Amino acid sequence: MGEPATALSGQKWVYSFGGGTAEGEAAMRNLLGGKGANLAEMAKLGLPVPPGFTLSTAVCTTFYDLDRTYPDTLATQVEEALTGLEATAGKRFGDPENPLLVSVRSGARASMPGMMDTVLNLGLNAQTAQGLAAKAGERFAYDSYRRFIQMYSSVVLGLSHDTFEYLLDDYKEAREYNLDTEMTADDWKAIIDQYKKAIERELGKPFPEDPKEQLWGAIGAVFGSWMNDRAILYRKLNDIPQAWGTAVTVQSMVFGNLGETSATGVAFTRDPSTGGKSFYGEYLINAQGEDVVAGIRTPAPISRARADELGSDDAPLEEAMPAVYKELTDVADKLEAHYRDMQDLEFTVEDGRLYMLQTRNGKRTAAAALKIAIDMAREGVLSQKEAVLRLEPSQLDQLLHPAIAPDAVRDVVVRGLPASPGAAVGKVVFDSDVAAKMADAGEDVILVRVETSPEDIHGMHASRAIVTARGGMTSHAAVVARGMGRPCVCGAGGLIIDAEAGEFRFAGRAIKEGDVITVDGAAGEVLAGAVKMTKPDLSGDFGHLMAWADGFRKLKVRTNADTPVDVETARNFGAEGIGLCRTEHMFFDAGRIAEVRAMILAEDEAGRRAALAKLLPMQRSDFTEIFKIMGGLPCTIRLLDPPLHEFLPHSDADLEDVATSSGVSVQVLKRRAASLAESNPMLGHRGCRLGITYPEIYEMQARAIFEAAASIAKETGTAPVPEVMIPLVATAKEFELLKLVVDRAAAEVFAETETKFDYMVGTMIELPRAALQAGQIAQTAEFFSFGTNDLTQTALGISRDDAGHFLKTYEEKGIYEKDPFVSIDQEGVGELVQIAAERGRATRPGIKLGICGEHGGDPASVVFCHETGLDYVSCSPYRVPVARLAAAHAALLEGDR
Amino acid sequence: MGEPATALSGQKWVYSFGGGTAEGEAAMRNLLGGKGANLAEMAKLGLPVPPGFTLSTAVCTTFYDLDRTYPDTLATQVEEALTGLEATAGKRFGDPENPLLVSVRSGARASMPGMMDTVLNLGLNAQTAQGLAAKAGERFAYDSYRRFIQMYSSVVLGLSHDTFEYLLDDYKEAREYNLDTEMTADDWKAIIDQYKKAIERELGKPFPEDPKEQLWGAIGAVFGSWMNDRAILYRKLNDIPQAWGTAVTVQSMVFGNLGETSATGVAFTRDPSTGGKSFYGEYLINAQGEDVVAGIRTPAPISRARADELGSDDAPLEEAMPAVYKELTDVADKLEAHYRDMQDLEFTVEDGRLYMLQTRNGKRTAAAALKIAIDMAREGVLSQKEAVLRLEPSQLDQLLHPAIAPDAVRDVVVRGLPASPGAAVGKVVFDSDVAAKMADAGEDVILVRVETSPEDIHGMHASRAIVTARGGMTSHAAVVARGMGRPCVCGAGGLIIDAEAGEFRFAGRAIKEGDVITVDGAAGEVLAGAVKMTKPDLSGDFGHLMAWADGFRKLKVRTNADTPVDVETARNFGAEGIGLCRTEHMFFDAGRIAEVRAMILAEDEAGRRAALAKLLPMQRSDFTEIFKIMGGLPCTIRLLDPPLHEFLPHSDADLEDVATSSGVSVQVLKRRAASLAESNPMLGHRGCRLGITYPEIYEMQARAIFEAAASIAKETGTAPVPEVMIPLVATAKEFELLKLVVDRAAAEVFAETETKFDYMVGTMIELPRAALQAGQIAQTAEFFSFGTNDLTQTALGISRDDAGHFLKTYEEKGIYEKDPFVSIDQEGVGELVQIAAERGRATRPGIKLGICGEHGGDPASVVFCHETGLDYVSCSPYRVPVARLAAAHAALLEGDR
Repeated sequence: MGEPATALSGQKWVYSFGGGTAEGEAAMRNLLGGKGANLAEMAKLGLPVPPGFTLSTAVCTTFYDLDRTYPDTLATQVEEALTGLEATAGKRFGDPENPLLVSVRSGARASMPGMMDTVLNLGLNAQTAQGLAAKAGERFAYDSYRRFIQMYSSVVLGLSHDTFEYLLDDYKEAREYNLDTEMTADDWKAIIDQYKKAIERELGKPFPEDPKEQLWGAIGAVFGSWMNDRAILYRKLNDIPQAWGTAVTVQSMVFGNLGETSATGVAFTRDPSTGGKSFYGEYLINAQGEDVVAGIRTPAPISRARADELGSDDAPLEEAMPAVYKELTDVADKLEAHYRDMQDLEFTVEDGRLYMLQTRNGKRTAAAALKIAIDMAREGVLSQKEAVLRLEPSQLDQLLHPAIAPDAVRDVVVRGLPASPGAAVGKVVFDSDVAAKMADAGEDVILVRVETSPEDIHGMHASRAIVTARGGMTSHAAVVARGMGRPCVCGAGGLIIDAEAGEFRFAGRAIKEGDVITVDGAAGEVLAGAVKMTKPDLSGDFGHLMAWADGFRKLKVRTNADTPVDVETARNFGAEGIGLCRTEHMFFDAGRIAEVRAMILAEDEAGRRAALAKLLPMQRSDFTEIFKIMGGLPCTIRLLDPPLHEFLPHSDADLEDVATSSGVSVQVLKRRAASLAESNPMLGHRGCRLGITYPEIYEMQARAIFEAAASIAKETGTAPVPEVMIPLVATAKEFELLKLVVDRAAAEVFAETETKFDYMVGTMIELPRAALQAGQIAQTAEFFSFGTNDLTQTALGISRDDAGHFLKTYEEKGIYEKDPFVSIDQEGVGELVQIAAERGRATRPGIKLGICGEHGGDPASVVFCHETGLDYVSCSPYRVPVARLAAAHAALLEGDR
Repeated sequence: MGEPATALSGQKWVYSFGGGTAEGEAAMRNLLGGKGANLAEMAKLGLPVPPGFTLSTAVCTTFYDLDRTYPDTLATQVEEALTGLEATAGKRFGDPENPLLVSVRSGARASMPGMMDTVLNLGLNAQTAQGLAAKAGERFAYDSYRRFIQMYSSVVLGLSHDTFEYLLDDYKEAREYNLDTEMTADDWKAIIDQYKKAIERELGKPFPEDPKEQLWGAIGAVFGSWMNDRAILYRKLNDIPQAWGTAVTVQSMVFGNLGETSATGVAFTRDPSTGGKSFYGEYLINAQGEDVVAGIRTPAPISRARADELGSDDAPLEEAMPAVYKELTDVADKLEAHYRDMQDLEFTVEDGRLYMLQTRNGKRTAAAALKIAIDMAREGVLSQKEAVLRLEPSQLDQLLHPAIAPDAVRDVVVRGLPASPGAAVGKVVFDSDVAAKMADAGEDVILVRVETSPEDIHGMHASRAIVTARGGMTSHAAVVARGMGRPCVCGAGGLIIDAEAGEFRFAGRAIKEGDVITVDGAAGEVLAGAVKMTKPDLSGDFGHLMAWADGFRKLKVRTNADTPVDVETARNFGAEGIGLCRTEHMFFDAGRIAEVRAMILAEDEAGRRAALAKLLPMQRSDFTEIFKIMGGLPCTIRLLDPPLHEFLPHSDADLEDVATSSGVSVQVLKRRAASLAESNPMLGHRGCRLGITYPEIYEMQARAIFEAAASIAKETGTAPVPEVMIPLVATAKEFELLKLVVDRAAAEVFAETETKFDYMVGTMIELPRAALQAGQIAQTAEFFSFGTNDLTQTALGISRDDAGHFLKTYEEKGIYEKDPFVSIDQEGVGELVQIAAERGRATRPGIKLGICGEHGGDPASVVFCHETGLDYVSCSPYRVPVARLAAAHAALLEGDR
């Protein structure tokens, strides 16, 4: 929580810049914020920057540590910086003759555009307005003054915009004015009087006339805005820690609105949308910067080329102010070369003179980031390593999924959580069986459910996208959809599915079953009708960059995939093996569930064995197909994991159905279901506990695996290397007992088929006890795969399915910085992984270590896995490229952390 | 799994004894088994012991490691020992003139009476029987021979007793004999022929005539019997590890059945039932040892005093064989003095000569153990320390609860699990509300339910005992009953409660509601009617021994208690504070549940606060009473822990009731219940997560605690020291946020009441992440209490409520040696406790550490807590003396482990 105030007295809080020099520089971004650091850097480079000074982010954090008060020495340092600024600018703050006016802006370490407050034209009062009038004209001066009062009142004094809007409207109406431009200097003076009176009435004290008081008010407001709701939300969405704080930059004002020789604009050194190498931007003659952003007037393109492209009639800056344009492009080139990255510039032209107000690395689409990185590497600006580092792994999602076309018309019918990216079009279906049937008939369907359960897997797989009313970002629907690469919108609170009426309703609007909708998984929206989409482009640049990335990374990347389709997809995305093949998926298949249920309902081992014998050839064919697709790559196959009751029907209607088809009475079925029911299924009779109590199940599965591998070996001459994985082990003994079962199945198959090939038997480390006992378990286990989903549930004591009730509050209160089911909890779960890795290796040096939780596709978690020295990460097919790139980043940034 | 056979070649497997010397001694009990070690010791002491030799327990474990084969060098060593034995005995094995006959008996490290197999008279065949006939008479020789064949066939050859019984019956019938005594030597010879023929018919090979073959057969059978079902079950019940193995002792036979100058008997040096100092035992003239045990003839008392006491007409040994009696009492005195403990002796008199066949520390009742320990300390035989160590903590249960009188008639109507010890009589009730009502009216009731839930707490408390159809030793009913000190029989499979018929049924028998039954919690049985009971006697000896124990222990002992009654009980049992007061208990109280539900059903914080304001005075009065009872002793009070849905009604009828009384519609109630429902409540919205999301609940509870403490302070002049405990913390931040809430409540109460007193705020460590983060949490937490129930659930990933489906199999397969919910899993959960203790202390030296899980009353777990250096254990009131004694043992045995 920071040091006590007394210890802070020696600290430098304020950094000046301007006049060709600066106390800061670009590297001091953490302290000065992006804006302040880059202004200092530009000043040092000799670029035309209005002078100013920056209050560091340390002021902000100290401000909050000291319960919203400033450190003692701040006032003196601001005073000194202000004196220096006055000298550089040749103007004085509050000087009625030649007043210094300043802007006060926020600037955080990471860009948070528009999230925090800004005050312009600060320093104006009755006297200085006169001084400004003498220099820049009376109407301009009083218009600026009233704008200042409006802005300051709103930002600093917390008054509503409306007060001022009403006064101005009334005033104009009384005079039958239509436009602000009809207002004269005297009109503005009258309005200023009205404004000031209104403010005094509302606050009980007059509007501050003293520029210093104004300055401190504005500084306080900007620091205060660090904790406004918008800023908090933005930080949350962008993973920006609250502890970073914001800097405040106080800068001499320049005016782009001093007439036709003045202008203001923004520019990008390359196209931020495509990455194309063209100077790109827009500007407004006779305007202030906020006007460009506000969108009241439509800005003109900056270059002739761009104007032609857009078919714009407005004169581009290139022609309106050729000298300024030349100077600007020179500055732009200089800055891009200096920063070695595409720059986003803000500039103002005051009476024919160019001023740079900001430069920063420009935000860009994933496609642009890819192109710019590749281009800059080809231009020799960046090394391959640097190019790889320029693309954020999390951006890749945009490139891998179809997306709604940017210019598409969006008729939003449902809003929910953006649970799985991508977009898809299809007909609304409410039932998983119907979805599967329609998909078989070649129709594109979208499954809309209150929530999903394992019984819906086939329906989800058959659908193009999934929409649910309930559940968060880590609900069953969300997790499974991401795993399958299906777009998904979930947790659409208020979505009502009325199966009887054959429709769903949201916010008063109804969509019929069978109607076509479009799901935008990235935006968390459902749109009416079939909306235009763009296809992912995985050609040229993407392939190049990923190849470079693969050259740098040390972690292997495998996939979590259960079906031939998923396995194929993952392989196309570059998966180097299967890290987790969940065999229960195969059990839920419509063609098999009856046998699975027969097995569960069997009275004794003999009955179970009879049912299992029927399942054996089905499982074998699954594995055969998967082994074929993966060629010689390693395949980790997990034996049955979920509790048996998950396979039994739940609703009365389903119970009746199953009773009829299985020849077992409903009563018996209910009794069996009741006897299997559990209070906490997550901690119940599942995983290897099934193998211990019903060894014949694991025996059948192991046999299916080995028979499949043997048949491939016979067919192709080379056998795959199956890695058989025992789930939910807590003790070495469990593993030993079940390894015997697997080894026996292998020996039998070897004898029967007269083959012999290598295989491994290992375990998931997904319970805290297993992590601690890793040394013992590694005595017999040949590999570990960290099941960080369950390890998170048990280590933190949080059920993923129930976390929705409180996890949001937890993130808001900063208890967990990120959802621990999305990004691995490094302190807790991470330490268990490290302990297990260390102890496992101590017993069995070189033991193969991987991770197969959802975290395997999360960039931050991939970095953790790299640092822990795991051999591979495994993730859902669509996350494979993300993991590959994240692994390259981790390797390249090693030691930087 | 032991060393490879080749590495065992140098090992000594066989130890001889007899002739006034021995290779073994009493201290080698682990290697020679109790019997073998003590025979060696007696031989060394010069006592009359028939010579023999012992195959060590290492042979047994190696036998199983080598897949039921012997180590290579065993045969030679047995051969050598046999030769030595022949020399000492002056007889030869298989010698037709003077045959050596031997007994072959098991002898494990811990006594397992009657569990394993024994073969007597081994060495007899057609030739040696003649030799024996020459020495001891023909009839005796052939009777012995046919007995040997019967025993050997059953034990070694696996044949049924019946075969032999039928043959003998037919033979006797044909000759119109009624009694075996009518059989002549020739008759026995004829029978022996028939036996041998039958055996050859059944097995396809003749009965072994070669004594060596007989010997190896018997040795193999005894080792084999280590793994028979009876032995496995006995070990399980008595916590004897399978890996200990058994020894086998081969010993020269002596015969107590050589006529009227021969006898056999057993004796105890003190009364094993009361502990009284009187020579105690029984004997039979002209009999073999097995006859005393088998109960075919009724043995006579050994002493005149005992004969008088029993009113027996039989001549005691004291009078029948005064010289032998004198020698025996001398031996007994010598052995008791030598072993410094009450001895259980087996002896045989062969033709007037006394032989000692066994001595061992005698089993005794808890009452006897207590009296003997105290007496021996007074006699100067034992030190106080030794006396304390003589009473097993687990035995104390017998002393603390009423028990069924030993001579009571037991009409068993239900059998289940012995879930909570003690016995109680009462009327059958099926409903908790009815139970409470009847108890209020002064009736003794016994609650019989399918299973119990938190809604039954008041009913359980009102009942004298609890019986359930479902759930294991750690089910809700079992845990709560033990906590309350109520006898409980649970998991009575097959128990059907027919509320409509107003009866329960078990094994075809019906008991009506209102009928009187007696519950024997220690035996797991329900008896018809009111059965005679014995009351616990906590006077004199008990108090002395516990006072001595208290002087030795380092661990403090607190109690888990929620109600004034429990707190009072615990204090009487010597609790030195409350380690866990669960505030939710107070919420379930019938008078409060309505307000609790109103709080849960409230739409917003204001509504919750209104309901909480009504609960405040109720909670305050609870705490006031508890503080009063505990005087100045520390009281740890845990803030609300269970998920809120536990407080809502579940059945439709209850829902209707609550709807009516709360004025909320059933629909709203159902919706709220559905919105609170959880898939895994154990890992759900509970513990401090309630405090984080609804701080007002914890605020009210903290206020109630501080107001209560303040009122006591005003009243008595001294304030208690409340220790406020935040449950289910996983992160330091959660604790910090909630400590603020508690501290604020304290500050407010201090200001309002103008008092000020010390208090502490600490946390339960019950999640693996919390254990790992203990260093961070200890920054603000002032104490840790290990909640090992939940820590076991999360570390092992096992739901206590669902463990019944597999935990039994797990224990059987040796995956967990003991139920980890009963005795702490030291490898897994234990390491987490150690890590947390270490890290917590590193941050905050001297941080107060305790344990408040069920394990706090388990002796082995108490030892673990002592070794980990915790400050205290806390357990249910009736376990307090157990924990006190276990803690003393732990301190006294420190370094012995």
